[in-house]
Amino acid sequence: MKKGTIKVSVLYPSGEGKTFDMDYYLNKHSEMVTELLGDAMLGATVEEGLAGGEPDSKPPYHVIGSMYFESVEAFQNALAPHAEKIMGDIPNFTNIEPIIQISKVVI
Amino acid sequence: MKKGTIKVSVLYPSGEGKTFDMDYYLNKHSEMVTELLGDAMLGATVEEGLAGGEPDSKPPYHVIGSMYFESVEAFQNALAPHAEKIMGDIPNFTNIEPIIQISKVVI
Repeated sequence: MKKGTIKVSVLYPSGEGKTFDMDYYLNKHSEMVTELLGDAMLGATVEEGLAGGEPDSKPPYHVIGSMYFESVEAFQNALAPHAEKIMGDIPNFTNIEPIIQISKVVI
Repeated sequence: MKKGTIKVSVLYPSGEGKTFDMDYYLNKHSEMVTELLGDAMLGATVEEGLAGGEPDSKPPYHVIGSMYFESVEAFQNALAPHAEKIMGDIPNFTNIEPIIQISKVVI
């Protein structure tokens, strides 16, 4: 994605007792978010954690989902009318409280 | 990046007293890593944190750098001979202990 693009990442930390329904996340939640955010969302990625940096370690994050936007305002305007619905869907696939990171693409 | 590609992310959590020399990171460290890992590295991205999910919040991560590889083995084989040099360069640009995440691209 080109330099300066805004990347909004939703990171789901792994840990004892944490659950995550990947099927629901990919086929229901992500589909819904894509539809609700519409053209403001320039693209999206999903990664599933395999391991950490140490041998045989668990991944620090179970899943990381990211979405790209032209600007922070474009993201906020797209999210605002649907924030409650999107956030309210999270307990349907996980008991993890996600970490939200808004970044600027540098490379 | 295509489904199944391995993504190795290095996340630098932000926090009180944490420092990060972006100029050194981009122009010295990233250049060195790119050269040392060679063709095994299929691509790389760098994001600089702007904010968290709450209004006026700080970004959870100062910087997130990621590299793509064909497989976990390809990553490990490329890194092994240079791991000490690469890890040893980190204190030259930050006092943050990074989080390393190995993921599989799903979307």
